[in-house]
Amino acid sequence: MPTAQIGIYGLGTMGSALALNLAGHGITVAVANREADWIAPFLQRAGSLAANLTGADTVENFIAALARPRVVLFMIPSGAPLDKVIAKIAPLLAPGDTIIDAGNADFNDTNRRAASLSDAGLHYVGLGVSGGAAGARHGPSMMFGGSAQSWSRLRPIFETIAAHYQGDPCVARVGPDGAGHFVKTVHNGIEYADMQMIAEVYGLLRDGADWSAGRIATLFSDWSRGPLHSYLIEITALVLSVSDSETGHPMVDVIADVAGQKGTGRWTVIEALKLGQSASTIEAAVGARAWSAQKDLREMAAPLLPAGAGASDLPTPEELEHALLAGRIIALMQGFEVLAAASREFDWALDLARIAEIWRAGCIIRSELLNDFTVALRADPPLLLADPLRAMLGDNISALRTVVTAALGIGLAVPALSAGLAWYDSIRHARGTANLIQAQRDVFGAHGFGRIDRPGQHHGNWPEK
Amino acid sequence: MPTAQIGIYGLGTMGSALALNLAGHGITVAVANREADWIAPFLQRAGSLAANLTGADTVENFIAALARPRVVLFMIPSGAPLDKVIAKIAPLLAPGDTIIDAGNADFNDTNRRAASLSDAGLHYVGLGVSGGAAGARHGPSMMFGGSAQSWSRLRPIFETIAAHYQGDPCVARVGPDGAGHFVKTVHNGIEYADMQMIAEVYGLLRDGADWSAGRIATLFSDWSRGPLHSYLIEITALVLSVSDSETGHPMVDVIADVAGQKGTGRWTVIEALKLGQSASTIEAAVGARAWSAQKDLREMAAPLLPAGAGASDLPTPEELEHALLAGRIIALMQGFEVLAAASREFDWALDLARIAEIWRAGCIIRSELLNDFTVALRADPPLLLADPLRAMLGDNISALRTVVTAALGIGLAVPALSAGLAWYDSIRHARGTANLIQAQRDVFGAHGFGRIDRPGQHHGNWPEK
Repeated sequence: MPTAQIGIYGLGTMGSALALNLAGHGITVAVANREADWIAPFLQRAGSLAANLTGADTVENFIAALARPRVVLFMIPSGAPLDKVIAKIAPLLAPGDTIIDAGNADFNDTNRRAASLSDAGLHYVGLGVSGGAAGARHGPSMMFGGSAQSWSRLRPIFETIAAHYQGDPCVARVGPDGAGHFVKTVHNGIEYADMQMIAEVYGLLRDGADWSAGRIATLFSDWSRGPLHSYLIEITALVLSVSDSETGHPMVDVIADVAGQKGTGRWTVIEALKLGQSASTIEAAVGARAWSAQKDLREMAAPLLPAGAGASDLPTPEELEHALLAGRIIALMQGFEVLAAASREFDWALDLARIAEIWRAGCIIRSELLNDFTVALRADPPLLLADPLRAMLGDNISALRTVVTAALGIGLAVPALSAGLAWYDSIRHARGTANLIQAQRDVFGAHGFGRIDRPGQHHGNWPEK
Repeated sequence: MPTAQIGIYGLGTMGSALALNLAGHGITVAVANREADWIAPFLQRAGSLAANLTGADTVENFIAALARPRVVLFMIPSGAPLDKVIAKIAPLLAPGDTIIDAGNADFNDTNRRAASLSDAGLHYVGLGVSGGAAGARHGPSMMFGGSAQSWSRLRPIFETIAAHYQGDPCVARVGPDGAGHFVKTVHNGIEYADMQMIAEVYGLLRDGADWSAGRIATLFSDWSRGPLHSYLIEITALVLSVSDSETGHPMVDVIADVAGQKGTGRWTVIEALKLGQSASTIEAAVGARAWSAQKDLREMAAPLLPAGAGASDLPTPEELEHALLAGRIIALMQGFEVLAAASREFDWALDLARIAEIWRAGCIIRSELLNDFTVALRADPPLLLADPLRAMLGDNISALRTVVTAALGIGLAVPALSAGLAWYDSIRHARGTANLIQAQRDVFGAHGFGRIDRPGQHHGNWPEK
């Protein structure tokens, strides 16, 4: 007798955690996995929660275990493997059933999959799930993209298992089809920028001021009780305070400085560009990871390339704190700009303030600041000029300037912080320098330009060159 | 009796110029245009060159006018319009005929078109043409992507009409299919960065030092005879020296500071990201154009957002010159890095030194510096460390640092110059800060990390968070 309220396919770190979260809330779950021999050990580990879990060793048994209308949630890599297993499972489903992709998918793929499954009467949901393994287990932030009908059916389940911020569940239907994955992608892009800015400040303390990991940990720990209060600052303090059991050295000092990436940061930058935007702080973070991977080149270059820099005054810890706050505000503003542009382009009517709200708990970028974003996004003016953000940015920008200037003086790289400052200085000038670019483009390509004194497209009377 | 050696479809600025260039070299050309009534005035303007030109008012007559095997060159917008006209003309062609797209196409589209036409036995060439209208008329730089067979047939024609650098024609078969358009795209990306860096220096002089356009023109004119010698520096001096006939003001002061873009800059950044690279100076240039378009926001923001900056020493003209040279080296290095990555990924075996050579004349980014790149690219070490570039970068980096620092101090935006410096400082550090990012990623996502002391993927023993 099929009774499981939801099926989870994929028992990796995230899928297992989500299954346990659901089971722990009394929701009955059927679980399946490509390698069926993962199932028994998982049920073993589940302990008393196994009462709400049913293992299925074939996709047919998996589907047969589900109550109708069926809900199948995939937590597997979202490329070709997903298409393959969807092709296998979709024919076993009936109109009205729902497929959820809870992995990090490119929203373009989600749109494509949703369109192709809608012919069969299947609902397709792209669900952004943030919070890592701990979040999935104990309460993630979730960004739901799908039909209103599937949302109204699934809402009770997701509100139950989500993180809560002062009683408010951190899950929302942000829009149709790929909207949820798009919002999750931008969330991750912001996460890239935030992590990179933290790493830049860490680098200034480590290489500019010769602070030990432990001393930096204490500073971050202090900061986590102030305006920078956030998950990422907390775990930074944590990782900096842990020692390697093998060598006794601080763990971070033993870790190679080569960062991985799985695509969401890059996707954010690409989608921003396609929308005519520039998420420059996120691009800087993606770039920094790319350059970190060029370890051999960096080792060769180190003795050969001069700094061209001298001694420089180091910023104070307070200046670093304020600079990081300004940088974080800017990265979030750029992220929300991308969301706003996508909402216009794809006609999603994204509720940006609600998105800020569901990011206040459960997800990796959760922070005190998202409360301020919620307030600002509910206000009327452009986000950049909405209080309290405008005031906060104004209060902290000179620290950002001091820190970037100091880093340049010492010769330490702060690509994300300096990209943020470059954006700020670009956007606050009524008269920029693109007039020169337009003149150049008209000379070599006859592209034309606007005039400041009257409308229309004009050409210069340039001499032959 | 069909005798035209080549057919040109599209009589806009670029197509007309290319047709006249061909005709002027004694090559017979059939010309066609979607609006057939453009043809007669074009032939009128062609004067004595009309003897080598045949107008065709229908596609049938156009194809009928061509000697076999036929060569049809399109110079029209490379999106849906191109697909449409190809669909109309391809059935009129025979195996062995060649279609050339000489517009700025996304190389992915070129690959797609080449593949779909090869079934019909048609050669498809993606031809990058740089140099603007004047280049197309008097000698462009051309990047040929297509089969070796089509190249050997067309080579004499293209070598005849190309720009020449000390006798060497600035055209080469860079690779198959979309390779030519890819190289042209990156060329344009570099062009974006170069133009943006020039605009940033212009902005420092205009807004930081209160120099008039005429005075800045004189400085650029001086620079055009030194190591910055290049087309873009020359035309910058030119546009800065021209007055608006209506108002008598310098022309640039009357031009709106809102820059257009047609896609190649953005494509370069996107393809770089897809290849795991970051063309950060080009991204900064694309971003600056995007922000220039936010004119209303900038006007609102100007009185409301504080600079957080004070007075700062201005760089000297010499420092600006050296900074611009350093920036230009970095932008070119990033561009060539993208080409190298694409060559590896798509198995194109791009001859990067040859590409630098064909950029030495005819194209928009032609400059003295490309000679140095040719030398460095023929050398063995990584480009970054190859002389004479390494020495030049070392000699000029402190000026770049001084200029960016000064700009930050004044509060003027130099996004591309500062992105270049951030890359330099990132790549010359053997030990970066990505170790912290890897620690964070392992805490929340169990992504694992490398260790500095032994191989393998490891996890930290982090306390529960």
